[in-house]
Amino acid sequence: MPDTTVLPSFTPTPRTRVRRVHERGRYDRETVFAILDSAMMCHIGYVIDGQPYVTPTLFWREGEKLYWHGSSASRMLRSQTAGIPVCLTVTHVDGLVVARSGFHHSLNYRAVMAFGTAAKVEDPAEKEIGLNAFVDRVYPGRTKLIRGINGQELKATTLLGMTIEEASAKVRVGGPVDDDEDYSADCWAGVIPITPRIGAPIPDPRLKPGIPAKPEIGHFPEGAAFDQVLLALARQMPE
Amino acid sequence: MPDTTVLPSFTPTPRTRVRRVHERGRYDRETVFAILDSAMMCHIGYVIDGQPYVTPTLFWREGEKLYWHGSSASRMLRSQTAGIPVCLTVTHVDGLVVARSGFHHSLNYRAVMAFGTAAKVEDPAEKEIGLNAFVDRVYPGRTKLIRGINGQELKATTLLGMTIEEASAKVRVGGPVDDDEDYSADCWAGVIPITPRIGAPIPDPRLKPGIPAKPEIGHFPEGAAFDQVLLALARQMPE
Repeated sequence: MPDTTVLPSFTPTPRTRVRRVHERGRYDRETVFAILDSAMMCHIGYVIDGQPYVTPTLFWREGEKLYWHGSSASRMLRSQTAGIPVCLTVTHVDGLVVARSGFHHSLNYRAVMAFGTAAKVEDPAEKEIGLNAFVDRVYPGRTKLIRGINGQELKATTLLGMTIEEASAKVRVGGPVDDDEDYSADCWAGVIPITPRIGAPIPDPRLKPGIPAKPEIGHFPEGAAFDQVLLALARQMPE
Repeated sequence: MPDTTVLPSFTPTPRTRVRRVHERGRYDRETVFAILDSAMMCHIGYVIDGQPYVTPTLFWREGEKLYWHGSSASRMLRSQTAGIPVCLTVTHVDGLVVARSGFHHSLNYRAVMAFGTAAKVEDPAEKEIGLNAFVDRVYPGRTKLIRGINGQELKATTLLGMTIEEASAKVRVGGPVDDDEDYSADCWAGVIPITPRIGAPIPDPRLKPGIPAKPEIGHFPEGAAFDQVLLALARQMPE
């Protein structure tokens, strides 16, 4: 998604309108998509017999659609193929907000709740394209380096997709907002940043000799912020 | 929780038995509690009129109970006070697993799904103790440094608790597990670690002069792993 694109906003509905601390709510696609694209992991909520389940799952976005996959044997995917409604939530923790009263302690975060109806991608060709796109989204060009998906793997994998019907983002940034009378308190106040950092790559013990980590995973440099690298990769992908 | 305690395991049920890649499933309380205690953020799933919602929320554990709070105005908390079933999920992303085929690419992670029925903590005294415990769990002794919760704040905050009725953990560690015939492939394979790192504290612009960050937030040293610091803090707390 080029930075210059102007995308229409999502319309707040009873499902998505941010009520609690409503000034933190955002509905523009730039914000929603950037939060989604900065993540690989989401939490998918679904209902079986009135019981909620929240499953952490890898996902990716293509335009207005979100995709995730898993074994065809998974209970979650079995129930979702029937087309049940899901809520897909992504959250980034950005920092601890240390305030001058317990009440105003908080967290800096970026979160998106996206609602839709999950449908199974049944067509094997579309499925293969989708699964390869996920690998290439994280490791650009990798599907050309490795062998292709075989028939057994394709059969064992379920790919689910949903069009985002409604979505909202909620974002908190900045320092503590204390009550006026508390600013004179003798305590520290501020923000402790938290960032998912990339560590030094650990080669597989069975790595073939003479294969360096770069360029294959050179786009995950040690010390970089994982969410920012994922976002940059998403912006390189064709929509 | 002292490391030496031997706790009984949770019993896998149809709700919690790990089906997909079942060898990753864990049901012992040590594992489940350690994953919960390494986090501040959870994803709570609940159902309103058949629609699943997944809300990111701060939470904490005390023994067999999980607590979370929010404004009394929150839709989620309004619906949960009636005692609806919830699923509370915590996930840590530990690393990217880079394999020799698309199918075997994976993620190292630690996740817990905990099921229970959320109930509102109505008693103001119990509520105050719970809210203070959350602040002190993250910033030991802080509630002694700052002013107490006032009546208006206590009224504006809803505290919810649930006893863990059932729980399971799912953990993936280690490098890629490739198909035998793929080990000769000319590509890099291994793990790219991801760790939530603590950054340099950002003092509030209105910080009173002469108040150093240490000792107040000295237990969040720059560069340390946030999840490990939270776990260490939880182990210092009285059960």
